Amino acid sequence: MNEPVEGPRPEASIGVFDSGLGGLTVARAIRRRLPGEHLVYLGDTARVPYGSRSAHTVVRYARGCARHLQQHGVKVLVVACNTVSAVAVDMLRVELDVPVIGVVEPGAEAAVAASRKGRVGVLATRGTVASGAYVRAVSALDSRVEVVQEPAPLLVPLAEEGWTEGAVPEEVVRRYLAAFESRDVDTIVLGCTHYPLLRSVIETEGRAALGEALAVVDGAEATAATLERILDERELRRSGEGGLRITVTDLPDRFQEVASRFLGAEVGEVEAIDL
Amino acid sequence: MNEPVEGPRPEASIGVFDSGLGGLTVARAIRRRLPGEHLVYLGDTARVPYGSRSAHTVVRYARGCARHLQQHGVKVLVVACNTVSAVAVDMLRVELDVPVIGVVEPGAEAAVAASRKGRVGVLATRGTVASGAYVRAVSALDSRVEVVQEPAPLLVPLAEEGWTEGAVPEEVVRRYLAAFESRDVDTIVLGCTHYPLLRSVIETEGRAALGEALAVVDGAEATAATLERILDERELRRSGEGGLRITVTDLPDRFQEVASRFLGAEVGEVEAIDL
Repeated sequence: MNEPVEGPRPEASIGVFDSGLGGLTVARAIRRRLPGEHLVYLGDTARVPYGSRSAHTVVRYARGCARHLQQHGVKVLVVACNTVSAVAVDMLRVELDVPVIGVVEPGAEAAVAASRKGRVGVLATRGTVASGAYVRAVSALDSRVEVVQEPAPLLVPLAEEGWTEGAVPEEVVRRYLAAFESRDVDTIVLGCTHYPLLRSVIETEGRAALGEALAVVDGAEATAATLERILDERELRRSGEGGLRITVTDLPDRFQEVASRFLGAEVGEVEAIDL
Repeated sequence: MNEPVEGPRPEASIGVFDSGLGGLTVARAIRRRLPGEHLVYLGDTARVPYGSRSAHTVVRYARGCARHLQQHGVKVLVVACNTVSAVAVDMLRVELDVPVIGVVEPGAEAAVAASRKGRVGVLATRGTVASGAYVRAVSALDSRVEVVQEPAPLLVPLAEEGWTEGAVPEEVVRRYLAAFESRDVDTIVLGCTHYPLLRSVIETEGRAALGEALAVVDGAEATAATLERILDERELRRSGEGGLRITVTDLPDRFQEVASRFLGAEVGEVEAIDL
């Protein structure tokens, strides 16, 4: 008789990784939707940001993060980073023996559902825009939907500095949204996990520029919903009290200082690890 | 009879390294002052930015860059990065057998010379500010001079995006300069090699906020002067036609696209290397 194949167990943790802080907005959505789960978060702060690096380098870094979390026996891996989701999710799915969920596909789904005119604008890092991942993901769902991409790199440091209201973010957001004005965009995807911190400015300036009916879509919620579906399908839901363990590859103190803004809750101890 | 100790030769190159693009403002000043020299520039774009990393990580990365350039037989090493100069120059001086020049000491010297009231403001990355390197360097020169530091992280992406004039950089610079207004600062050091690209906005806003007599000091010029002195002292000046070879650890095409703004001249081929 053969040994039964040993698969992931429900009591195992969910691995979540990002280049840095941004993925905490995804962790936040997961914690809210699945409070019984235990999350292990890895922020690769020694090599952040991924958004301005080549696909080759992003793949190399993502592989290191994923392997580290796999060694900790996670039952699912959530790639809580648009840049990695854009270029490395397929590779990770081949290499790992647990389900891998990225943020691009759920975000694209939510955008297609929200857009009435079929004109979706994507604000993202330069790396995500260059990958064309949102264009492909939207097109796979509905080839009639047009996607307009705009790299918005300054929104990352604004979110990290906590400059999320006032003249500076307003001017910056207005400048980025100009790309959408002539294209009749009615839905904007926040294609970087940092951008939800600027959601209020993006909504206000976006409605002023593109009309009151503008929808702003954040992939974190959609990603949490996809995760829930996969856990249910594979009977991997955990019950009891959940938790969140945060590890980073550099500067745990600075991370802890800023992380509560992204997580929307107090952040406990942050552990430093070497990859 | 003993063999003569083999030291650096005048015909060897000058090694210049930075975490990314910024050091090209230093390369530019060196090229202008020492046109007969050959420079090998290394931008560690796979791990940029160093400014938001721990000293431990910066030292580790700096050691990798320095060793790579040393293997290429450089006669002098210029650390064209304030973050590395702030935390790793002493270590590099111990480990390498060629002279090592940082940008902090020359910048501090120029600031002390420029300030009439003895009140110097430093704009720098978070890493450089946390290191206190400018405070120590100024104090070593003249302990009566007061140093006011202000981390100005957003100036880096503004410079890289080419947003160097108009409402956005003006608002950002005004916000950072507010820290100097109550402290009677009469001299500002650009304590990050990216900031010279915003020099015009910093001068205009700075004079409006701090008075027409404000001096803005860029360490690149002072660093090139220090380099010239050391080459002369050690009889390492090279004559003939100089040159510049640029190597990076990621994204050579994107680097080439942006680099001419930093170098103030067209940039030829950019080579990708692995560290």
